[in-house]
This record gives sequence, structure tokens and C-alpha cells, in this order.
Amino acid sequence: MMVSIKYLIVFIQLALLAHCLPNELVVEREEPNYAPNWDSIDKRPLPSWYDESKIGIFIHWGVFSVPSFGNEWFWWQWNGSKEKAYIEFMTQNYKPHFTYADFANQFTAEFYDPNHWADIFKASGAKYVVLTSKHHEGFTMWPSKTSWNWNALDIGPNRDLLGDLATAVRKAGLKFGAYHSWFEWFNPLYVQDKNNKFSTQEFVKMKARPELEELINTYKPEVIWSDGDWEAPDTYWNIKDTVVVNDRWGVNTSCKHGGYYSCADRYNPGVLQPHKWENAMTLDKSSWGYRRNSQLSDYLSVHELISTLAQTVSCGGNLLINIGPTHDGRVTPIFEDRLRQFGSWLTVNGESIYSSKPWKHQNDTISKNKDKAVYAIVLEWPQTNQLTLGAVEPKTVDTIQLLGSKGNLEFKESSGSTLVTFPQLNPGSLLWAYVLKINTK
Amino acid sequence: MMVSIKYLIVFIQLALLAHCLPNELVVEREEPNYAPNWDSIDKRPLPSWYDESKIGIFIHWGVFSVPSFGNEWFWWQWNGSKEKAYIEFMTQNYKPHFTYADFANQFTAEFYDPNHWADIFKASGAKYVVLTSKHHEGFTMWPSKTSWNWNALDIGPNRDLLGDLATAVRKAGLKFGAYHSWFEWFNPLYVQDKNNKFSTQEFVKMKARPELEELINTYKPEVIWSDGDWEAPDTYWNIKDTVVVNDRWGVNTSCKHGGYYSCADRYNPGVLQPHKWENAMTLDKSSWGYRRNSQLSDYLSVHELISTLAQTVSCGGNLLINIGPTHDGRVTPIFEDRLRQFGSWLTVNGESIYSSKPWKHQNDTISKNKDKAVYAIVLEWPQTNQLTLGAVEPKTVDTIQLLGSKGNLEFKESSGSTLVTFPQLNPGSLLWAYVLKINTK
Amino acid sequence: MMVSIKYLIVFIQLALLAHCLPNELVVEREEPNYAPNWDSIDKRPLPSWYDESKIGIFIHWGVFSVPSFGNEWFWWQWNGSKEKAYIEFMTQNYKPHFTYADFANQFTAEFYDPNHWADIFKASGAKYVVLTSKHHEGFTMWPSKTSWNWNALDIGPNRDLLGDLATAVRKAGLKFGAYHSWFEWFNPLYVQDKNNKFSTQEFVKMKARPELEELINTYKPEVIWSDGDWEAPDTYWNIKDTVVVNDRWGVNTSCKHGGYYSCADRYNPGVLQPHKWENAMTLDKSSWGYRRNSQLSDYLSVHELISTLAQTVSCGGNLLINIGPTHDGRVTPIFEDRLRQFGSWLTVNGESIYSSKPWKHQNDTISKNKDKAVYAIVLEWPQTNQLTLGAVEPKTVDTIQLLGSKGNLEFKESSGSTLVTFPQLNPGSLLWAYVLKINTK
Amino acid sequence: MMVSIKYLIVFIQLALLAHCLPNELVVEREEPNYAPNWDSIDKRPLPSWYDESKIGIFIHWGVFSVPSFGNEWFWWQWNGSKEKAYIEFMTQNYKPHFTYADFANQFTAEFYDPNHWADIFKASGAKYVVLTSKHHEGFTMWPSKTSWNWNALDIGPNRDLLGDLATAVRKAGLKFGAYHSWFEWFNPLYVQDKNNKFSTQEFVKMKARPELEELINTYKPEVIWSDGDWEAPDTYWNIKDTVVVNDRWGVNTSCKHGGYYSCADRYNPGVLQPHKWENAMTLDKSSWGYRRNSQLSDYLSVHELISTLAQTVSCGGNLLINIGPTHDGRVTPIFEDRLRQFGSWLTVNGESIYSSKPWKHQNDTISKNKDKAVYAIVLEWPQTNQLTLGAVEPKTVDTIQLLGSKGNLEFKESSGSTLVTFPQLNPGSLLWAYVLKINTK
Repeated sequence: MMVSIKYLIVFIQLALLAHCLPNELVVEREEPNYAPNWDSIDKRPLPSWYDESKIGIFIHWGVFSVPSFGNEWFWWQWNGSKEKAYIEFMTQNYKPHFTYADFANQFTAEFYDPNHWADIFKASGAKYVVLTSKHHEGFTMWPSKTSWNWNALDIGPNRDLLGDLATAVRKAGLKFGAYHSWFEWFNPLYVQDKNNKFSTQEFVKMKARPELEELINTYKPEVIWSDGDWEAPDTYWNIKDTVVVNDRWGVNTSCKHGGYYSCADRYNPGVLQPHKWENAMTLDKSSWGYRRNSQLSDYLSVHELISTLAQTVSCGGNLLINIGPTHDGRVTPIFEDRLRQFGSWLTVNGESIYSSKPWKHQNDTISKNKDKAVYAIVLEWPQTNQLTLGAVEPKTVDTIQLLGSKGNLEFKESSGSTLVTFPQLNPGSLLWAYVLKINTK
Repeated sequence: MMVSIKYLIVFIQLALLAHCLPNELVVEREEPNYAPNWDSIDKRPLPSWYDESKIGIFIHWGVFSVPSFGNEWFWWQWNGSKEKAYIEFMTQNYKPHFTYADFANQFTAEFYDPNHWADIFKASGAKYVVLTSKHHEGFTMWPSKTSWNWNALDIGPNRDLLGDLATAVRKAGLKFGAYHSWFEWFNPLYVQDKNNKFSTQEFVKMKARPELEELINTYKPEVIWSDGDWEAPDTYWNIKDTVVVNDRWGVNTSCKHGGYYSCADRYNPGVLQPHKWENAMTLDKSSWGYRRNSQLSDYLSVHELISTLAQTVSCGGNLLINIGPTHDGRVTPIFEDRLRQFGSWLTVNGESIYSSKPWKHQNDTISKNKDKAVYAIVLEWPQTNQLTLGAVEPKTVDTIQLLGSKGNLEFKESSGSTLVTFPQLNPGSLLWAYVLKINTK
Repeated sequence: MMVSIKYLIVFIQLALLAHCLPNELVVEREEPNYAPNWDSIDKRPLPSWYDESKIGIFIHWGVFSVPSFGNEWFWWQWNGSKEKAYIEFMTQNYKPHFTYADFANQFTAEFYDPNHWADIFKASGAKYVVLTSKHHEGFTMWPSKTSWNWNALDIGPNRDLLGDLATAVRKAGLKFGAYHSWFEWFNPLYVQDKNNKFSTQEFVKMKARPELEELINTYKPEVIWSDGDWEAPDTYWNIKDTVVVNDRWGVNTSCKHGGYYSCADRYNPGVLQPHKWENAMTLDKSSWGYRRNSQLSDYLSVHELISTLAQTVSCGGNLLINIGPTHDGRVTPIFEDRLRQFGSWLTVNGESIYSSKPWKHQNDTISKNKDKAVYAIVLEWPQTNQLTLGAVEPKTVDTIQLLGSKGNLEFKESSGSTLVTFPQLNPGSLLWAYVLKINTK
Repeated sequence: MMVSIKYLIVFIQLALLAHCLPNELVVEREEPNYAPNWDSIDKRPLPSWYDESKIGIFIHWGVFSVPSFGNEWFWWQWNGSKEKAYIEFMTQNYKPHFTYADFANQFTAEFYDPNHWADIFKASGAKYVVLTSKHHEGFTMWPSKTSWNWNALDIGPNRDLLGDLATAVRKAGLKFGAYHSWFEWFNPLYVQDKNNKFSTQEFVKMKARPELEELINTYKPEVIWSDGDWEAPDTYWNIKDTVVVNDRWGVNTSCKHGGYYSCADRYNPGVLQPHKWENAMTLDKSSWGYRRNSQLSDYLSVHELISTLAQTVSCGGNLLINIGPTHDGRVTPIFEDRLRQFGSWLTVNGESIYSSKPWKHQNDTISKNKDKAVYAIVLEWPQTNQLTLGAVEPKTVDTIQLLGSKGNLEFKESSGSTLVTFPQLNPGSLLWAYVLKINTK
């Protein structure tokens, strides 16, 4: 029997690029109804679980978690752009001639408990989890055949970190995804191809492609979160050829043909998007990987996180919340704190998020609606306990509820808008953001 | 000119003993008015800053912060009581014959920034800071002459950790105190004395006493938080003799003569105490030292912390809040989160805490009062927005305010008690605990 | 201008195989007179320097020099054949989950002084030096593009160990050669090909061949000492194809076409060989790599070394003397002792070795000779001071000298043989072996 | 029953002082016939085993064996005299703030096999073995009570290195001795006493004396090889007081009262000494501790070693040959080579050494003799095979033998001297030095 697994491939430029690239696409695995060409692929719908999930957890973990200084671009900033702070950090704390690869055997992961991680992620309300299977450092979190002695089984943790997470995450009922960087900063084969202006493809043939195939065939991730493709054209990465050659999974590199896109670094378009998109952001505002030199002020508050969720979901996006575990395999309490509080809010207010479709009005501009129920997430409690919803036509409203409280709220027509009176509640009984459920006639 | 410095010596049994011992005492340095005998010392008042401070920060930091597993009794539980979890941790993660002292050169403290620590502590509202100058492991956090190569300058951090903290803390306007353990689990001189049923005093003569004197003479801590004295009688520790011999600082070992006491591990007597006391407790419920295997659920919430404060201060105690920094010198964000939120609460409500004297009614039992202002800390917002204060005689009340809100509250007599009506506030405007200031006529 | 460099490729099975394989061959680089086919190559003479050199130094250095226990097959014996002694060594001295790659960052080479090494090698009388550019562990001693983060620049020494040695050795007037292992015990690509019975060639394409080409093109070694080819047929290693494809250096895998061969591990055929051959042996009898658990008795004495030389050269072989440097880059004094004493013997007796051709009688069986001068190396001083040379016809002898002493020796005919009377010498004036130079008429 | 153990205490200044100090003395333990005063002690003969032993092994082993660079004064030259080479070595190879004590946990001793060591020492012909129980670094090789966490059991080897060697050495039939340094370069108690011009004795009371007593009482070494006393007067070290107080072993600090002395660093008085003395020297000419940066040329040849022995013994001295084991517990092959070859010479020629008494003529000046047998050690074989012994009166000679060869040598009177004709021997049959045994009438 043929197993049909749907892959969601999200091409995205992470971390250093703030602009948005429309390069997501949908991939199906062994799905006989679609041919490996753009016309066929474009007709295929996005797997519904992805849109319904709304919230995912992003995990940046790798050798960069050992120095855990600055951010996950540590290697580049030390040896590539040669930033002073990084050079000084090394000079102050390591012997001369210490190399980046010398960090690897300090990647110990002795406290790594993937089931405990999955428990936290589930409690946060996320529905899928995406791990950096390989970041720009080239280190693979699974025992890749083409990354010998530069992977988590051969050096350091001595464990298939990715495989164990995939198992735990799925056991908890969540989907598992893999972030994968195409390029590798210092891989000499890549550097050579780049110096050849990508007229050669040694790196693609000998590392990038076999690695990605191995990753997909072994772990069957539901999401491939592709990254690090921006230095070379699609023809270099050879994606089209692969489709032809491999014939087992289709890859379409152009976002024109896919239909969903994501943009890095707290992308927040502010208006409803015609395509499904994803807001990948991180709880530590300045780093995706764990960094020891973070302060409390670097972490988003729960209120900020919920605000971001509300804005993202209302515009049709998914929220991918990033955390950085430590070299010894822990999700630190401050991350756990934010995730669990976020989850407690969702316990009350989750129905406004999951399986919702963005309403035509992401912001409250006046308009008509025909939906059965509309949710309005109010980020600050109205000073006067009264709120005017300009976008909600009073005549269409049947009842309005405040999630987490009993009974219906009073509302009336006011200059064509709907004026809602909030209940009197005790301080502390509801927190962070307040969801109105507007049931329509 | 003679410098007179007052020392507060708190004899306490930490961590493993839950009962309370009345063994605090006051010490004065070079204070000619008091003779080194109990009668004289007993007449001396406690330095007023201590009572007025109400809140201190306790720091457990040492070689135990390197394994940072279980708790700060790691060495004992591994090699003394030989607990399975500790033995397994070592077996799984270290080579055979790895010793406790082998941990010391991994005590790196590269991120240690005492001014930043002091900033956090000040923001928390604490007024004094107590560091483990030497825990039961015997490792001194300053370059002790009698702990050669077993101190923070000679091995590991290569820095006078204690001295640098004392400077930073004082620069921030806080008092500096030093925790000091008398006994040392595995010091062979101590073990020998103990085997001799304390008929010999080699350990006291060669390590404990000279070390304590060096500590006091060098850093002049405002508090000596003495610990680890419980295995041997006072005569072994030679405290009285020292007074006689040294004649420069008086030590009185019996709490009968001191007047203030403290009890370890969240001591909470529940009723007003005749003596000044201190509630030393820790944000990580299960450990004083940093431990990597803590979960979010192990940390007190801000609400729990404020509740503890309220109970402690109302019964005449000071609250000493413990945190455990990491081996590399960081106060982790979860500690910073709790401390700063706690501080933000104090910014609004601090007047009910600092310089207050416990009212006759620590709990709200009916009674009369003659004070100018009384503060009632309400840990949960009343469901009905109305609260009956049985202990407050209505006739004596002039006005009642809710700290952090404007105007006076309505109140009236109700069966001899005072019935206060809480204002209508927005959810989230005040948090955790609500302070009524009752101004009397 | 075309640079013509001659490569001597010696296919040999090292270490674990005691039998002799006739698989050496001669390779020329960019030598237009020879076509890349066997007929043409077979007509090409061996570079004369190789035969004239007689003595080379072999160096086994790599990550195995870090544990430096057992021998250079450490990884295999620990994780492949799982020998008890190796497992126990790891269990006793390393934490669980310590991997072989974890050793790499302890490969420090801080005392590595290639000029000093070259000085020792030159003093030993050797004329060429062969370094393990890559042993079966796959770690390359130069920064190989296809062995990223598993080479001496990227992890551990942070230095091009091979390049620096090549420079130093040539500066000292010696030839530089590179040992190269085809297979790699645990390379997953190799293991996969092997499991596929070598019907796939991923390993050859992605690592072995590009690496060998890079090695040759970068460092232009005068000798390629190939090894580790024995598990797979020549067609797997793709050597013939390479000739065709690359057209820049010819490789002929069959020793039938080469003409010179070598056999591992003290191969000593005992009779004159029709082909040039090499006796690769090691001063530490039980290991090629440095091992800390060696005893003095494991090292060859100078007398044993000279005896081996005499037997080898007299049968037409070259002697390749192996040493194992330490992880920190030292040639230990015991190796230096043997090499320098060996060199001091050659200072006196070298004319019997260098540029000599093996005489028809490798052992002294009776025969005639027509050479101008014949050298007889006498390994033990004759008890009676008289020695009968059965193979030397008295009539042909002009004079006989003892190298290192003055004047000619007395000799006379005795039953058709030549009876030589040794001089009276003081004990200690000559050592280890005594060379008669027999000048013929 | 009273056990009487004789201690030989040798007060000596090692390493940095080239001049000779007459400060040896004899000590007896629990020997009731001698009172603890100079007159009594002076009358006591030296234990006969010491004079009869002639050859001992000296071992310098400690934390300095970890850097094993320069020499065993590493710490001083790095942090005391701040020599450039040492500072550069640290800067190049270690992170900033690496301390000397940080080396301790790399002192692993995993290959330490004291029985194997004893086997080598026995084979060398030595009769006693002296280990650095504590060098100037203050680190004790046994678990000293007053050197907690700065001894070989608590940090690093996790083993009583000294105790295990004492057992093994005695099992092999050799005597065991302990080198002990009085002073400790950087011990803050010592530095304080020194700054006080030795008017205080904190260091002596708290470390030096209790440590030495513990050492002697626990391990009962047959030799205490005292060192490091030269910075302070005898009154500081409190030796006389100790005699009085302890009453169990007498120590007399003045060499005037002892009668035997030793001088450091290849002391070779050249003429017969009236007192028993010892020539402590080291096989690595430039270091007592192991150093990785040694070359072959730094090691004494066997011939040099035998020459030194001959000169030393003929002048009444003992030879104490030093070796430096590695941080991982090995006696390197070059040391083993010298010791075993030395022992093989003694196997033939030992009768001229052991239990001999120095003849009146240490050098061959003309004189008469009345001894039964006299041994003449000839360091170079006479060129003409004839040797004139001016000091030997021909008439007194009965026979002359060459040890290691058969029969008697021819000799005759020649101008009042004895002219000996050496036999014709094969090169290599005897080596290094040739012993004539002259049997007198």
C-alpha cells in the first residue's frame, strides 16, 4: 500500500533578512494524483492540519548552543564577519587555536528529555514542532551519512537528537517538522561553488541534496522548513532536477507556484494575506539559539506573545514560537514560564484561535459579516468597560460572550456600530487579552 | 579613629533541619560601650537597619554550582549519604575517579557581573545581600589563607568573587552579608575532631576560626549568617574563648542572649514573635544552589512570594529570598523575572512593608488599634468586592485607601467590624496582592 | 612549462595482514612519454632516487595518537571488533557516551616542530619521509574539502600538519611521501557501499577519490603510500576510470604492471627479489601509532634495526622505519635515540647501503663475483676474529677493508673461500654491525 | 614490642642552589639508646644499609608533571619569577585566568603501575627509591589532612600515589624514602610568615610540621629527603622544639651533628669525603620533573651515568638517580632504557660498587694499599691495551681480573707502578666502563 504523506515546504530567509520572500510551497509525498510539475502541484490544496494548527514551536539547537553567546550565528560572527564582541569572548575564555568544531564535544545533552519537552510544547497549545535539523553550521542533529563526525551521534551528544524528538512529539499528538539550511557558511565545498559563482555544484551533490533526502526518507517530517537558500539561484540547488530524478517527492522552488509564504523575524503584514503564511518569531528577541548573555528584558512577556498571536492569526498566519535549548538539553524555566502561561490563556481562549479562519476584518474597520461566530481579541481592557466594534453590524449579532466569564454581555447599536459593555471582573481573574465571541444570527 | 561596625550574627541550621533554633545574636565590632559578656551584649539593641530592611537576597554559590544537580548538598549526597540519584548522575556523566574537587576548575564565572547582580537585587526591593562565603564544601569565595587552592582565586574563577560582590552591592546602596558554615563535611581535620567526639579542636584552630576572622576583618560584612554549627557544642567552636582571646569582636553563642533568631527553610511561625527573626527561603523550592534539573513548577510564583512576604513581615520577620547563580556567573532569567516582578509590586505597595512594625494583629482577628496607619495586605481580591476587617474598629478609622489606586474606599461599620468596599478595577491593573492603607483618627 | 613529477605508488596491506601482495607500481605525473595504459606504464623505469634512498621514515600520526593506547587501530578495536582491553580502557578513563570523534579536540600538537622532526629524520640517514595523510579513521592531516571538521585544521591542532611537514622535510633535502588509506572503517558511505557489495560507489565518489586528488595536486608528494584497499576490488576504487577521466595522473592498480612491491609488517623475503620492494616496519614492535602503554622491551634495539636494514637492502628492498609521534606533536626521545644511533652507524657504514645494488648473494653462499666492490655486513663480530667468506672468490679480491678502521685486512684463500682476519679493536670502538668492503680486481 | 626504624634525614637544597651544604643527619625512630640531643645523636652510626646501597632512584612527580614544561619549578617560573618562556607557554596553550591549581584535575595517573615501576628500579641496580611526597608546590602525593583538596586522593589521580609506591617498592625488596619540601612557594601562610621575617610560624604549625609527622607516622619512610628549608632559619622550622615535644623521633638540623651530607645538582666533590654523602642528579640534565620539551641530547648517556657512578662511589658518595614520570603515570622508555642498561652493567660489575668502601685513592695517584681487593673502574679502554696503575704497588698484587671476562690479566712492575695488559676482546662484548679487580696478597 502506498503511504501518502504531505510535506509542507516553507522556503524562508531567517535571521538576518528582514524582508519577506514569497517562496513557500506545498509538497506531497507519493501522492499519485499530482504530477511533478508546477501546474499540477499548484492545484493541490495545502494540508488542512497546517492551517488549523495556528501555533507551532520552533527550536534552534546545535553546536552554537555550546558557546551560547550572542546568537546562533556565533560561528559566522566570530570567523566570518569577525565581530569584536565575539572575538573578545573567545580570546577571554578559550585558548588560542580553539576552533568552532572543538566546541562539539561539549554538546552533552545529558538532561535532554524529549518527552518532557513535548509535554511543555503541548501545554503551550502548539500543534507542531520544528527543530533545526541542520543550521548554517552544517552540523546535523541526526546521524547523517554525509556529515560524518559532524553530527549529534558521532560527536558530542552521541544520540539521534532529532529522531528522539520526532518520536516524542508525535507520541504527544503533535506534528513534527524539520528546519533545514541549504547553505553552510564554512563548508569548503560550498565556498568553492560560491567562488565559482555557482557554476559548480559539488556541495549540492555531495552534501545538501543527499542530506535532505536522507532526512525526509528517514524521519518523514510533516514540515520541511527550508532556509539558507538565498545566496544561490534555484538552479544551483537543483531542486527541479531532483524532482525529475527522484520522482518520489516533488519540490517546487518558486513561491509563485506554492501559494503560502513566510517571512522571517516577526513578519507581521498587518493586513489579511491572500496566501497562508507563517510568523516565525522568537521569545528571546535577539537570538534564536540559546545564549547565556540574555537578560530578562530580552524575553517577550506573555502579553506581547499573545498580542503577536492575535495579530498573526487574524491576518491568516500561523505563529511559530522559537525557543533555544541549552547545550545540556534543557528548556530553561523562563521559556517554560512563557509557554505554559501562553497555554493557560489558550485553555480559556483557544476556540478563538484554532481552526478559525481570518475574518474579513483583521482590524476593526466597519463592515458586514455573515459568519456564524466571530472572535474579537481585545488586547487591553477598555478603560470605561465599554467598547465599540465598528466592524460588527449590530443587526447581525445574536449574542456576545466574554470567553472565561459566564453569561452574555450587553450590547446595543451605536451609530451603526456595536457597543459592548464589559462585565465587572476582579483584577487577576483574566489576564493579558480578552476574547469576545460574537455569535451571529 | 576607631571604626565601629555592627555585626549581626545569625546562627541557623540550614536546609536539612526543619525545626527552629533560637540562636541568633548581635555582635559589635570595636564598640567600646559593650563588654564581651552576655549581660552587656544583651543590652545592646539590634542595628535598626536590619529590622527596617525587611527584605534581603540570599545567594548560594560555590563549587556545587558546577554539577548544579540535585542541590547544594551534592557532595554529601554523592559521597556521604550516597544517594542513588547522585551516584547515577556521576556514573552517567563523568569518568570513574572523578572527584568533587575535580569540578573546581569548571567553576568559570565568565559572565559574572556583580554590578548587574546588584542592579537586579536593588530592583527586587531587597536592602541587603548575603552570599555563601563558604558552604559546607569548605570552598571559600574569597582568597582565604587557610583554604589554599580551595578558593575562588586559586582555582576556577581566578577572582575574589566575594570581594567584588561586596563592593558592587555597597555601591548600589545595599548592605552586604556573608553566610559562613562552621563545619565542612569532608574536611579531614573536622572529621578527625568529630571522631574524637570534639575533644580535639584541630579544625577550629587551623581552619574555621582563622577563616572567619579573616573574612570579617577583610570584608567587614554587616551580617554574618552563620551555619553548620549543629554537629558540635559551642565549646568546640570555641566562640567564647575567642571573645576572650581576641577581644576585638564579641561572639555569644547562645540565642538566649541575643534576642533575634531565624529558622531555616521557610520558617513561618504564624504568630508575632517577641524577637526579631528572619525567614530564609528560596525561590527554587527544592534547592538553595542552582540546579539544572529544576522545572518551572519548582519556582515560586510571584503571588506565592508576596504571600510569604506578607506573612513574614506581619509576624515581625525579615524575608531572605534565596537564588542560586550558575557556574558561569549568571542569575538566570527566571530568578530575575521573579525578583523584578516582586520589586514592581513593592514599588506600589512598599510602604506597607519597609520600616513598618508588625501590628498587634498579624492575622485579621478582631481587636482594637491605636496606630496612625495600618496596612492590610489582601492576598486575594474579594469575590464580592467587599471585605470585612474584623480587627479594625470602625470608629478609629479615618480613611482607607487601596495602594495603587486613587481616592478613598467606602467603608462602614458592620457588626463592630469594618466593611470595606473595593473599587471596580480593570483586570490586570493590579496584581497578586492588594494593600489597604487604613489611616486612623 | 610542464612540470614532471614522478609518483611512486605503493599498494600495500598494512598492519593486520602478514602475507605479501605484489601490488606496487610506478606512476608519473604529466610525463608525456607514457600513455595511461599498462603497456606504456610498464616500460617506464622506477625513479632512481627511490632505489638509491634505501631508507625512509614512516610516521603514523592522527586522532589515534590521542588515546595512544593499544595501537593505531584503536577505534576499530574499541567499536569494531570490540576487544575487551579497549572497552575497559574507555570505561575506566572516560565518561559514558564518549565518542572517538570526541578525542579530536585533544589532538593539540602544541610541541609540533616539523623542522626539528626533519632534523632527526635527516640525522637517521633516511632519505624520504612518509606521513599518514589519512588513516583508516578518515581524519585528514591536511584541510581536506571533503573531510570538513574531520581534519587537522578544523578541529584539534588547527594547523595543516601535513603541509608543514612537507615543507620542512623538503627544506632538509628529503623527499616527502603521503600514506593514504582508501577505506575508512566507520565512514557510513563506505559501510553502505560495502553492505551493497560494492555495487555502489558513493564513498569513492564523495570522499576517497576527490581527497586523493586534492592531496596529490596540493602537496605533490613524491610517494603515495596507498593502503586500506583490500576490502574492495579495484573496480570499486575506480582507479582505471580515474585515469581515463582525469587524464592527469595515471594509476595502475595491478602490481603485475608495476614491478615493485612491498609487504607490510617487517616483510623480509630472505632472498633477492626480482622487483624493487620495501620493508615497512616499526620501531615499536606492536604498534605503528604512538601508544602510551609501550615498554622499553617493545622497541627495537639499534642492533636489531641495523640487522633488519642489512637483510632488507641486501635483498633489494628499501627500509621504511616507522615512528609514532604523540598527540602534542613530539617524537619521543626513545625514537630519537634509535634513529640517531642508527644514523651514527650509517655515518661510518653508509657507503655499503646507499646507492648499493644488492649483490647476487644476499647471504653468504659460495659464488663468484665480478663487481668492483662488494660490502659484507657482519652482524656479529667473529669469535675468533676470523671469518670465512664462502661467496667471495679469493682470486678476485684486491683488498678488504673494515669500514671505520684504518688499513686493509689480511685475507687468504682457504678451501676456495676467502678467510678474513679481523683487526684487534677496542671494545666500544665499533658497534652493532661491521662492514667489510671487498674491493675486487 | 618496640619497633625500631631508622630514618636518614638528608637536608639538602635542591635545584636552584649549586653550592654544597653540610646538613645531613641521622635520625632513629624509637631507638631508646640515643637521647634527643646532639651529643647522643652524633654517636649513633649511620644505618649500614644506606652506605651499602650506593644507588637510589629519585622520583620527581607532582602537579608540575601536568604542564611538564621547562621543569618542576614551573609554577615559580610562571608566576614567581615570571620568565618569558613560561608565560608564553601558558598564553599559547591555555585560556586566560587558567591557574596552576586548574592543572590538578589533569593529573590522571591512569597508567600508574607501581609494581612495574619497582621492577624497573630493581633492574637498574638501585637499592632505595625516594619520591617527592610534596614538592614546593605544596601538593601532597598522599591524602594529607592538612592539604585538603590539594593532594593526590582528593583531586586528579584519586589515589594514594605515595602509599602505593611504598608498598610496591618494599615488596620488591627496596627501601622507600620520601622527599619533603619544607617551604611552599605560594602558600599564603608561608608567604605571610616570610613577610613577617619568620617572626610568626603559622605555616609551620598549620601545615609543614603536622604534614611531616603524618607522613612519617603513616608511611615510615626509611629516608626523609628534606628540602626547601633554605629561606628560613632552623628556629623557624621549629625542629628542635619538635624533638622535645614529640619525643618519638629526633631531628637535629645542624649538619655539624649529623655527619653525612649531600649537595644538590650533580655534586661531585672529586676527593674522598670524611662524611657519607649523596650525589643527587638527574637523567634529564635540565629538569627533575618530566618535561615534554626535552630532547634526546638532554638525557645522560649510559656511559655518562656510569662515569658519574664511578666518581661518586669512589669518593664515598651514594648516587641518587632522578627520573620524572608523566602526568598519566608512566616512566618513559628513555628513562627505562638508561636504567636497564645501567643495571645490565651492574650485573657484570656490581661487585665493584655495592658494599665497597672507597679506597684511599679515588683517583689513580701513586700510593700503597693493604686491602684484600681493590676495584679500578676504567672509563675508557686503553688505546694500546696497556694501562699503568700508579696507585697500585706491584708487590702487593696477587692477581688482576677484568670483570666480565675469564682468566687473569697479565701485569708487571713498571717504574714502581703496575702495568696491566688488557685482553683482546671483541667490540661490543663489554661496554661503557671496564672494571679491574685487583686482588692483593
